[in-house]
Amino acid sequence: MADEGGKYVNPGGEFSRDQNYITTRITRDGRDGYPVEPGRYRLVVSRACPWANRSSIVRRLLGLEDAISLGICGPTHDARSWTFDLDPGGRDPVLGYERLQEAFFARFPDYPRGITVPALVDVPTGAVVTNDFPQMTIDLSLEWAEHHREGAPLLYPEHLREEIDEVNRHVFRDVNNGVYRCGFAGTQQAYEKAYDRLFHRMDWLSERLAGQRYLVGDTITEADVRLFTTLVRWDPVYHGHFKCNRQKLTEMPVLWAYARDLFQTPGFGDTIDFDHIKRHYYEVHRDINPTGVVPKGPELDGWLTPHGREELGGRPFGDGTPPPPPRPAEVVPPEHTPLAA
Amino acid sequence: MADEGGKYVNPGGEFSRDQNYITTRITRDGRDGYPVEPGRYRLVVSRACPWANRSSIVRRLLGLEDAISLGICGPTHDARSWTFDLDPGGRDPVLGYERLQEAFFARFPDYPRGITVPALVDVPTGAVVTNDFPQMTIDLSLEWAEHHREGAPLLYPEHLREEIDEVNRHVFRDVNNGVYRCGFAGTQQAYEKAYDRLFHRMDWLSERLAGQRYLVGDTITEADVRLFTTLVRWDPVYHGHFKCNRQKLTEMPVLWAYARDLFQTPGFGDTIDFDHIKRHYYEVHRDINPTGVVPKGPELDGWLTPHGREELGGRPFGDGTPPPPPRPAEVVPPEHTPLAA
Repeated sequence: MADEGGKYVNPGGEFSRDQNYITTRITRDGRDGYPVEPGRYRLVVSRACPWANRSSIVRRLLGLEDAISLGICGPTHDARSWTFDLDPGGRDPVLGYERLQEAFFARFPDYPRGITVPALVDVPTGAVVTNDFPQMTIDLSLEWAEHHREGAPLLYPEHLREEIDEVNRHVFRDVNNGVYRCGFAGTQQAYEKAYDRLFHRMDWLSERLAGQRYLVGDTITEADVRLFTTLVRWDPVYHGHFKCNRQKLTEMPVLWAYARDLFQTPGFGDTIDFDHIKRHYYEVHRDINPTGVVPKGPELDGWLTPHGREELGGRPFGDGTPPPPPRPAEVVPPEHTPLAA
Repeated sequence: MADEGGKYVNPGGEFSRDQNYITTRITRDGRDGYPVEPGRYRLVVSRACPWANRSSIVRRLLGLEDAISLGICGPTHDARSWTFDLDPGGRDPVLGYERLQEAFFARFPDYPRGITVPALVDVPTGAVVTNDFPQMTIDLSLEWAEHHREGAPLLYPEHLREEIDEVNRHVFRDVNNGVYRCGFAGTQQAYEKAYDRLFHRMDWLSERLAGQRYLVGDTITEADVRLFTTLVRWDPVYHGHFKCNRQKLTEMPVLWAYARDLFQTPGFGDTIDFDHIKRHYYEVHRDINPTGVVPKGPELDGWLTPHGREELGGRPFGDGTPPPPPRPAEVVPPEHTPLAA
């Protein structure tokens, strides 16, 4: 996601997310003008952003690193755009851009909406293809299947789609977006409504996951990816910054074990940069945190403790295998993750 | 404490507390013009304020309710003063004031500093006597001894004074005031310095209290009162609002058990109004929380769970006894405390 000049809270009441994205799809048949083609597209993310995090996890799980390259924006951005300030000279080495905005303008010179991550960019033309994140990960699973690694899991298997979609709807509305509805509420009433819905859903999820290892079926699916990206940001950000403070994640035993299980699974934890996550929210949302001071806590060593979820059975990758370690250029800096310990 | 128009953070760096109070004392010999005299003075507090909370706890423990009456200001205040907005007609029924400021101006018409609680007010003249909170509780123990209840504990016994003073110095600098230094820091550097000092001291306290029930000696003393008033505000306020988020209190096992032990001791928990505590910090510090939205969490039932600290021995009230329940007019509203459950 991107912003509108440090203003996020809706002073009138409820936060409402602009859900209009560029719906062009990259498909096998190329019906929107963008056919699946290894090496042609660049996935632009920020490690901070939970919506972008979905695509970086799915790309890892499916082994699409050779087929789709990765551009990483810095954790903060200004009113106009996410920027490539982490790259040498402040430019993405493949696209040559300083700002992700340039890719949006290359396609739509008057693009009026938010410049958001994740974005898939057509490298030859430098033009953004899509920033439609809910469709993007599904397409990585289905349209790019030919280019998956050997042993890639089925994240959106046909016989489970209806159930995955149903769970995803609840999780998006009450949890993924629910934490923002808490944090960006401009009135006590709007906040409390979002808080009640959020924790009602957290209780529902705890109950569901008490007896089964994954959200749908007995393997990792798209539904787990989508829940994980919110859970992993809970204690560092949402608990304090967004006032989602009935409990910390560490105080919700089922969800905490579930999140640790995934974190310790290759393809999940190795995409997480806790430093970028904290800096993004605390530095960018000045209307929630005027000083821009970033909390030092919480401690992160708990993420590596045994989770005990193997006892529930489940086959994380189904008939497949875990992905190999991330390529060196994509490894999260050791001081930003407990995995380096 | 009171404020300066919603501005608390020091944009230049470290928060520095104005520690100039009205040092007039109420003494047995009346050498400052205000002799100890039952029924003559009114203690004005806000349930929200940790500095005022010291005096309301000590008054309860010592059974000074008959000797010194209690006025309770609402949890929030404007740039000028704490106010008696909880009272019928918005006026303190004994002093007749709408604002605590009136008591300060009755003594010093041009009083230039903060209008702070706790304050002891001379009822016949309506003039404030003192707001010097560190001296105030010591004087309640020593100067008012004649009017203590039967079985009142010795909170500042002579043979422990040196050690109590020493512990209090550390606790004030690093913890009581340290949480404010975290929350009101205007720069990352000032915040991190305060955070490191705070948690260094929290570790020191955990170690000290792992093997002994109370901070100094084997009975409750002034030192426990002073630490408790910060610990009880940790999870509702300091953890999120002031970014003291290495751990929640509930995640520091020794300090959490110690705090619960005190909370469950008559005279401590019955002075705590969690609603006032949260509303004060989140509604008043608009430069930290611009929306004024007050978090719904955390849940409070944990405060009543067994603490197991009896095993460490200790005699809470020494040769004395616990105080009887608070008088009906001073009972915290049931919806603001877990004690009513």
